[in-house]
Amino acid sequence: MALPVRNNSRQVFRFIRTINPPRRFVCAAALSPEHQEPPGGGRVFSGIQPTGVPHLGNYLGALENWVSLQHRYPSVLYSIVDLHSITQPQDPARLRSNILDMAASLLACGIDPERAILFQQSKVSEHAELSWILGCLTSMPRLRHLPQWKMKSKQRSEGSVGLYTYPVLQAADILLYKSTHVPVGEDQVQHLELAQDLARIFNNNYGDLFPEPRALLSSTRKVKSLRDPSAKMSKSDPQAMATITITDSPDDVALKLRRAVTDFTSEVTFDPETRPGVSNLVTIHAAVASISAEEAVTQARGLDTGAYKKLVTDAVVQRLTPIREEIERLRSDPAHLEAVLARGNRRARELAAPVLGEVRQRVGFC
Amino acid sequence: MALPVRNNSRQVFRFIRTINPPRRFVCAAALSPEHQEPPGGGRVFSGIQPTGVPHLGNYLGALENWVSLQHRYPSVLYSIVDLHSITQPQDPARLRSNILDMAASLLACGIDPERAILFQQSKVSEHAELSWILGCLTSMPRLRHLPQWKMKSKQRSEGSVGLYTYPVLQAADILLYKSTHVPVGEDQVQHLELAQDLARIFNNNYGDLFPEPRALLSSTRKVKSLRDPSAKMSKSDPQAMATITITDSPDDVALKLRRAVTDFTSEVTFDPETRPGVSNLVTIHAAVASISAEEAVTQARGLDTGAYKKLVTDAVVQRLTPIREEIERLRSDPAHLEAVLARGNRRARELAAPVLGEVRQRVGFC
Repeated sequence: MALPVRNNSRQVFRFIRTINPPRRFVCAAALSPEHQEPPGGGRVFSGIQPTGVPHLGNYLGALENWVSLQHRYPSVLYSIVDLHSITQPQDPARLRSNILDMAASLLACGIDPERAILFQQSKVSEHAELSWILGCLTSMPRLRHLPQWKMKSKQRSEGSVGLYTYPVLQAADILLYKSTHVPVGEDQVQHLELAQDLARIFNNNYGDLFPEPRALLSSTRKVKSLRDPSAKMSKSDPQAMATITITDSPDDVALKLRRAVTDFTSEVTFDPETRPGVSNLVTIHAAVASISAEEAVTQARGLDTGAYKKLVTDAVVQRLTPIREEIERLRSDPAHLEAVLARGNRRARELAAPVLGEVRQRVGFC
Repeated sequence: MALPVRNNSRQVFRFIRTINPPRRFVCAAALSPEHQEPPGGGRVFSGIQPTGVPHLGNYLGALENWVSLQHRYPSVLYSIVDLHSITQPQDPARLRSNILDMAASLLACGIDPERAILFQQSKVSEHAELSWILGCLTSMPRLRHLPQWKMKSKQRSEGSVGLYTYPVLQAADILLYKSTHVPVGEDQVQHLELAQDLARIFNNNYGDLFPEPRALLSSTRKVKSLRDPSAKMSKSDPQAMATITITDSPDDVALKLRRAVTDFTSEVTFDPETRPGVSNLVTIHAAVASISAEEAVTQARGLDTGAYKKLVTDAVVQRLTPIREEIERLRSDPAHLEAVLARGNRRARELAAPVLGEVRQRVGFC
């Protein structure tokens, strides 16, 4: 389950809603039925790894969609999935600050903690617990051909158990809240299918409990690297000029767009197949200005790519400036960020505890 | 980590001691150093799967040793490891009653909840949480050649993720309490080595935290099947006559021993290699009467194997009768059993929470 933008961030999604005061190890007998059903309009879950400040591709490809989902569903959960992040080696101090930076960025991008439950995955112990239980219902071969394992384990000489099994944790992330809708990008469709399968397997073994989470088609907008428009924009790109971070200064944005790879045709057209570089600029322009690609091309009429880059720069800077300023403001007050997360963690636990309690009961633990 | 007796029960072990009031998500900064060290004399952990009432092999091979360890170490934890049990399919109602039956059996065999913390693994969420973190430090190939996976995955057409990764959960079981000593049977030595490796890997990555748990040589006494003395006594043996359960009536014990496979020599000798059947009777006799095999053979002088079986029956019945009666008494009061476990669960959480808090801090979650 991830956003369409997914280079160094695996992302998981869900819908949620307040249910019940938190109870540790609550069992089903203690819960009335209405506590166990998602709200009528559905429940969305999504997650993002704490990679620090997101880049423009994350923002336009995924986070904008997160903001809009808050207004379209009665119950929305967004999780900073730090348990997923340690499936690759992490520097602890960096991880700690990245969690707060991601929280600041999500708030600055428009995630409203009154509408969405924004929380840190590792603070809700039920995720790891449900993951263990679901792992006992997952066959080993089922995970072997999932694309992330094939790609990531190839990059390193041998993958970890966490890297192999993280799709099971993603399934737990989703099912723990009885999520009904999960925004997914193409590269995560097979992981959502695993969550659907595990919902079915659990329901078959232990009686109906989990809705089968449905995919929400997220934006197909894909922002490419400014240095290699055949690749996605990625935070881990070794070329600093390839990626615009949402906290980049206007000067940085201008420099990176000036250096963006285009081609030898000076006219601006939108043709991602034959002219990926300039088309990527059109995509970015259209997205930040909330217009269509056609409108962006119309605005570019009479400009060569050099002049168009300035126009795109202005549009990007206009869009990012309030976000950058808000991130700076939020970063200066880590206590506030921690308080926002603490409240989200508490609300997530309130939802998770009765569902895990029901799972425990059905499995036979109590 | 398991007892020497281990057919249908995988067993884990540890040492523990009261530390601190329970705190959810406590971080290291909140803890004084003395809360993080095991007591001077060491800390033992062990676990047993909730298979219901143990058989004679479990009792003589492992549980007697558990009882004696309570008096030799300042801090002892015994866990009914229900999270491990679901790595194989379980009937929920059966699992539920098996957990209480195992608790009753352990108490009846002499586990003293004042000396040892007796608890139910799934009620301490930190086990699954630490297991996830340790799984991110375990390479996939590391688990592939462990004997339990090779054996169990062969029995079923394909093993589950839980079956593959349970040695990581065992390592978490042990390390979560900073256990210093773990009683192991031969078939679990490689699993303890994984726990030792993970302690080293964690310490290397994040600074010293976990002692490397040492193996406690447990009794080499091995009780064999009464029908096939080349195999261990096992609860899952399809031949009911092969296994004496510690709640068997005197008549059942007599019948099973009468039918026990011996050979065509009527004299009683102790020679497990050439006369496994009669030697198994000598082993059982010596163990239940707390004498050596030589003494048992001396007592058998002048008896043929038929008469000796009666002598062994008397010795077994004498040993099991108070245990059987105590199990019956305890089973009639499930509320008491639940209260004993609830107290043990609370005490285990009090120990686990600060250690996991320190782990979270070191990893960078807080």
